[in-house]
Amino acid sequence: MIKISIIGAGNVGINLFETLRKKKEVKIVSLFNRSLEKILSYKDKIFITNNIDEIKKSDIYIISTNDESIEKISNDLRGRDGMVVHTSGSTEMKILSIHKNFGVLYPLQTLTKDKLFDFKKIPICVEGNNDINDKKLEKLVKIIGSKYYQLDSEQRLALHVSAVFACNFTNYLFSVAYDICNENKMPFEILFPLIRETLEKIEINKPSKIQTGPAIRKDINTIKKHLNFIKSKNSKKIYSILTDGIIEKNGK
Amino acid sequence: MIKISIIGAGNVGINLFETLRKKKEVKIVSLFNRSLEKILSYKDKIFITNNIDEIKKSDIYIISTNDESIEKISNDLRGRDGMVVHTSGSTEMKILSIHKNFGVLYPLQTLTKDKLFDFKKIPICVEGNNDINDKKLEKLVKIIGSKYYQLDSEQRLALHVSAVFACNFTNYLFSVAYDICNENKMPFEILFPLIRETLEKIEINKPSKIQTGPAIRKDINTIKKHLNFIKSKNSKKIYSILTDGIIEKNGK
Repeated sequence: MIKISIIGAGNVGINLFETLRKKKEVKIVSLFNRSLEKILSYKDKIFITNNIDEIKKSDIYIISTNDESIEKISNDLRGRDGMVVHTSGSTEMKILSIHKNFGVLYPLQTLTKDKLFDFKKIPICVEGNNDINDKKLEKLVKIIGSKYYQLDSEQRLALHVSAVFACNFTNYLFSVAYDICNENKMPFEILFPLIRETLEKIEINKPSKIQTGPAIRKDINTIKKHLNFIKSKNSKKIYSILTDGIIEKNGK
Repeated sequence: MIKISIIGAGNVGINLFETLRKKKEVKIVSLFNRSLEKILSYKDKIFITNNIDEIKKSDIYIISTNDESIEKISNDLRGRDGMVVHTSGSTEMKILSIHKNFGVLYPLQTLTKDKLFDFKKIPICVEGNNDINDKKLEKLVKIIGSKYYQLDSEQRLALHVSAVFACNFTNYLFSVAYDICNENKMPFEILFPLIRETLEKIEINKPSKIQTGPAIRKDINTIKKHLNFIKSKNSKKIYSILTDGIIEKNGK
């Protein structure tokens, strides 16, 4: 039985809590949050506290706060046995190196309020400060039910950057497309089949090999027409830079 | 029985040909291509030619050449009865106005070589020069089996621009993410669950409402770390501009 405390009842913390508390191999012994009010509703399920010193002795302390608080929480846990891990994509593992056993457990997901994660669909990237802790984290990921990747801190940062490009920025481009449809009295859903197809294609092809559109064809007439059509200064700039990017990449 | 000639054996032309020739309501009477060699393999199925004057009398002439050739082909068809339509997303209908009956039949799709379109999944946007021709094009789209949208030339251009943002540019961002994964010895597939989720979410939410990531959180520390990490000058520029776009849009 692995004893776990979860520190920080944000999105990741609550989802880990709700998933792990149902697993027979695990016992959640404490749920910490700075604001106790936010976790009051859990008090019948689990020991809750807003006092770090009250956190019960655990095999693994999972710090799932925002990135800025990780170091302070880690310091407050100084001297505890057990492994201390954080769940941040863009924070190095070594921030926890005051402990003997430490690591990272980074679920690659997007924030979805009021909806529990399906951890079967979420890859978790782990890093331990030694082989034994690597194994412990691997075991924990298997209990959670996620796909497991062993990444070092630099790779994790790279993955986070990739995810910003592949998800945050694509979502922003969808929002630009949405606005253009909306301003021209067209339902955004016209684009769904094309968007779905783009997605299906990148799952079996290298994206650069299936690039289509005016930029890759160097279709200057269409590019000019499009730039002429776009009213928003910002969208115009984005159109130009991504077009240049496609042309440049293809020229290599 | 609607008699149709298809002019231009590119991707759209061939797909329309292969789909329409199976429909009992339609008879394809000619397939034209500038290079006869490219369409020689069709000669047992259909009358082929590389001479515009040999194109047989039709109810509808579909010009599915590249955008630059549409006007010339249209001129070469001058004096013919029947409706002349083109299939271009970014060409105005009025380019065909030397004819009495004309219009546009624009399938919103991406180029996929060696794979027949599934027209059930492809929206077709139509515009006719009068109500009767609108109805004729609507009927043709129903025969093809696609979802039908009536768009005027400006809307069609807007749609094309939206599609560039939502598909061509997102694919390019995927290729940037792919490269970052690759350079850091991670399989691109780690990102698939997150990408799929982003897609599922925009089908039921307005994209701007579900924007996540460091930019929308104004998480300057993470943004700095990411910019510091990105080596490619071009990707750095794209990261900055899309980040600014997200911050600016959210500030409105």
